[in-house]
Amino acid sequence: MTMYDIIEKKKNNLKLTKEEISFFVSGYVNNEIPDYQVSSLLMAIVLNGMNDEETTNLTIAMANSGDKIKFNFNAADKHSTGGVGDKTTLIVAPIVASLDCKVAKMSGRGLGFTGGTIDKLESIPGFKVQLTDDDFINQINNINIALISQTKNIAPADKKIYALRDVTATVDSIPLIASSIMSKKIASGASNLVLDVKVGTGAFMKNIEDAKKLAITMVNIGKNANINTLAVLSNMNQPLGNNIGNVLEVKEAIEVLEGNGPIDLKELSIELATYMVSLYKNIDYNLAKQEVLKTLESKQALNKFHQFINAQGGNIEKISFNPKYEYKVYSKKQGYITKMNTEEIGKIASLLGAGRMTKDDIIDYEAGIILNKKINYYVKENDLLATLYTNKEIDLTNDYLKAIEITEQPIENELIIEVIK
Amino acid sequence: MTMYDIIEKKKNNLKLTKEEISFFVSGYVNNEIPDYQVSSLLMAIVLNGMNDEETTNLTIAMANSGDKIKFNFNAADKHSTGGVGDKTTLIVAPIVASLDCKVAKMSGRGLGFTGGTIDKLESIPGFKVQLTDDDFINQINNINIALISQTKNIAPADKKIYALRDVTATVDSIPLIASSIMSKKIASGASNLVLDVKVGTGAFMKNIEDAKKLAITMVNIGKNANINTLAVLSNMNQPLGNNIGNVLEVKEAIEVLEGNGPIDLKELSIELATYMVSLYKNIDYNLAKQEVLKTLESKQALNKFHQFINAQGGNIEKISFNPKYEYKVYSKKQGYITKMNTEEIGKIASLLGAGRMTKDDIIDYEAGIILNKKINYYVKENDLLATLYTNKEIDLTNDYLKAIEITEQPIENELIIEVIK
Repeated sequence: MTMYDIIEKKKNNLKLTKEEISFFVSGYVNNEIPDYQVSSLLMAIVLNGMNDEETTNLTIAMANSGDKIKFNFNAADKHSTGGVGDKTTLIVAPIVASLDCKVAKMSGRGLGFTGGTIDKLESIPGFKVQLTDDDFINQINNINIALISQTKNIAPADKKIYALRDVTATVDSIPLIASSIMSKKIASGASNLVLDVKVGTGAFMKNIEDAKKLAITMVNIGKNANINTLAVLSNMNQPLGNNIGNVLEVKEAIEVLEGNGPIDLKELSIELATYMVSLYKNIDYNLAKQEVLKTLESKQALNKFHQFINAQGGNIEKISFNPKYEYKVYSKKQGYITKMNTEEIGKIASLLGAGRMTKDDIIDYEAGIILNKKINYYVKENDLLATLYTNKEIDLTNDYLKAIEITEQPIENELIIEVIK
Repeated sequence: MTMYDIIEKKKNNLKLTKEEISFFVSGYVNNEIPDYQVSSLLMAIVLNGMNDEETTNLTIAMANSGDKIKFNFNAADKHSTGGVGDKTTLIVAPIVASLDCKVAKMSGRGLGFTGGTIDKLESIPGFKVQLTDDDFINQINNINIALISQTKNIAPADKKIYALRDVTATVDSIPLIASSIMSKKIASGASNLVLDVKVGTGAFMKNIEDAKKLAITMVNIGKNANINTLAVLSNMNQPLGNNIGNVLEVKEAIEVLEGNGPIDLKELSIELATYMVSLYKNIDYNLAKQEVLKTLESKQALNKFHQFINAQGGNIEKISFNPKYEYKVYSKKQGYITKMNTEEIGKIASLLGAGRMTKDDIIDYEAGIILNKKINYYVKENDLLATLYTNKEIDLTNDYLKAIEITEQPIENELIIEVIK
C-alpha cells in the first residue's frame, strides 16, 4: 500500500478502504507521509467526496491517533458548529446536570468570528479551566458537571490535518468537517451527543442544504461509533440572544437561568437540554421537556450553575464590566430589519476585543455588543440598534450599520429548522 | 493575491487569470509557495481542468521561469510524447537537415519503459551530447543540424512542478501534460514544431480520445505562442520498428536511411519529416513529401546523418554489439498476434539493461530486443517471436510471452491515426 495509490484511487472517485484510510492517517501523524501528498488527497476528497463508511473510518482513525478518554459513567455532551453570541453551553450544561445527567465536557477557545466557551468561562474571575484528571472526575461524581479546556492529546491527526486544510483551501468538505468534529467527540469519551448545527450568515454552513448534509453525516458517524447522537439545525442568520462578548454572554446566560433573557436563546437552550436529557435517560421528548422546564422554574439549574462555577474557583460577584468606550449605533431609516450579516457582526465584536483574529490575540473580556433590535424588529429613524463596548478607541458603528439591512416587509425566520435523529 | 485564493478558485471550477497563474508559478519556483499548496492546486486542476487560455498562460509562465533560447534563424523541431522503439528523431532530423532546414534540437534521456534520444546517441562511441553554445550554433550554421542534451536552465518551474506531480498522483491531466511539454519547447526556441502524440499500450495516452485532446491542446498552445505547430497521432499499440535498445535502434535508424528497415518506422519517419519540411518551408504536404522521398533515395539524408555524427565526434564503425546472452522467444500457439502489451515490452527491455527503472540506473547499450513478429503477423507454434539481448543472466522470455496475445483473426491496426493542424 502506498500513499500514491491512495491518492490515485480517490482522484478516480473510488472508495477508500478502512486500511487505506488508517494507513494515511497514521502515516501522516507519524510524519511518514509528507504534507504535499496529504493536501493532494484532501483536495481529491473535497472534490470527489467520501461516503458514510469512508467518513466513519476516517473519523475513527483520527480518534485513535492520540489519547482516548473512557469514563466509567454515562456522559452527556453537546457540540455547536460555532456561531455568534452562542452561549447555550453555559445554560444547557447546568440544566442537564441538575437533572442527574453527568456532564463531562471539554471545550475550546474562539477564533475568527466565533466565540469559545472556555474564553467565556475565563471571564469569570478565579475560574480554573484546567483540572487534574482526578479533580475532573471527582467533581463530576460530586456535582454532575465539570467543564475544562482541552489539554489531552486528543485526535492529533485531526489537529495536523486541520492545520493543513486551513492553508490549502480544503476546509469546506462535509466529510472532512464531520470527521474532524466527531473524531474529537469520540476520543473525548462522549456517549450521548447533541449537535447544534448552525446555519446562516453567522455560521460555517451558509445554507440549509449543506447544514443538513453535515448533520446527517455526523449523526451517521455517531451511530456507527455507538454514540447516541442527534442533531438540531438552528438558525444563525442573526446572533443568538442579545449579547455578544465574554462577560456580556455570561451575564445573559445567568439571566436565562434566572427565568429571564431573550426568547431565542431561551428556546434553543431548552430544546438542546431536552434532547440531551431525552438521549441520556432514554426517555420521551415531552417527558424530558417537562423536567427541563421544571428545573429552570425551580431555579435548580441556576443553583447548579453557581455550584459548578464555585467548584472550579470562579466568583461571579467579581465580574467587572466597565468598558472605557461605548459606541451607540442608531438606525438611519425605518422599516423591518430583515438581514444581519452575522459573520460581519462577529468580526466587529472580535475587533472590539471580544475575540481573536489570530491565535495570539489577547481577549478583552469586557468588549462586546448589546443588540437592541434583531431580525423582524420594526425600527424608526434614530432608534438605538446596538451598543458597542470596548476598551480601545475604535469606532465601528458604520461597519455595524453596513451589516444590517432594513426593508419594508418582515421575513420568515425560524429558530429551529430541523432535527436529525 | 494569495495562493489560498487561487486554490479556492480552481476548487470552485473558476477560470484562473494570467496574473494568478504567473503568481503561482513564479512563487513556486522561487520557493515562496510551499509544495503542499501547489499539490492541492494541481489536484484541483486535474479534477476541474483548465481551458485553452489558462493552459497557454501556464505554459508561458513555466517557459519564462528560466533560460529562454533565441536563435537568429528559423528552427525545425519535433517532439514525441514517448514510446517503445521510437528512434524517429535519428532518421527525421538528418532527412530534414539535408533539405536545408535547420535542426537545433535538445533531447532528453529515457526513464521507465520509454527510451531517450540522448541515450541512443551516447551508444555511438565518441559521440558528444554536450557542446558549448558557440559550437552548437556554429555546427547548425555549417551543417544544418546539432542535437544535444539539455543543459540550460530550461523551464525550471516545469521541472519542479513535474517532480511534485510525480509523487502526488497528479500526472494524468491533459492541461498539465500539454503545458509541461510545450513550456520546454517554447523556452528551447522552437519556431516550427511537429508533435508525435503516441497512443496505445506503449504510450502515456492509452486511448485515442485522450491523445486527440492532448494533441489539440498542444497545437492550440503552439498557435497562441506563435509557433507553427502540428500534431500527428500515431499508433503505439506495438513497438515502432523491430529493434528496441540503444545500439539496436541506432542500427535500425541507419537501415531506414539506407533505404531498408521496417515499413512502419519508415512510414512514420517519412510522414513526420514531410510535416516538418512543409511547416519550415511553408510548402504544400505533397511537395514536401517529394523532397523527403528524394533525399532518402539519393542517400543525401544518410550522408547528413554521418556528417552529423562525425561533427559531434561519434564513430559508427566502433559501435559494438556482442551481448553475452541471447534469449529466444518462441510461440506456444498459432494464430494472429493481435495484442502486444507495449509498456510491458518496454519494461522488459529496461530490465535487460536497455533503459532506466530509476534515474540512477546505468544503461547497457547492447541490451535490447529484436522483434520478429508484430501485430497481425500470422505465427505457427515454435515460430521465433523475438530475441532478447542482454549482458545479465536474466531470462524474461516468459514475461515476453505474457505480453503477447495470439488470436484467430487479425485486427484493425492503423499507423497514423490522425493529423491535428
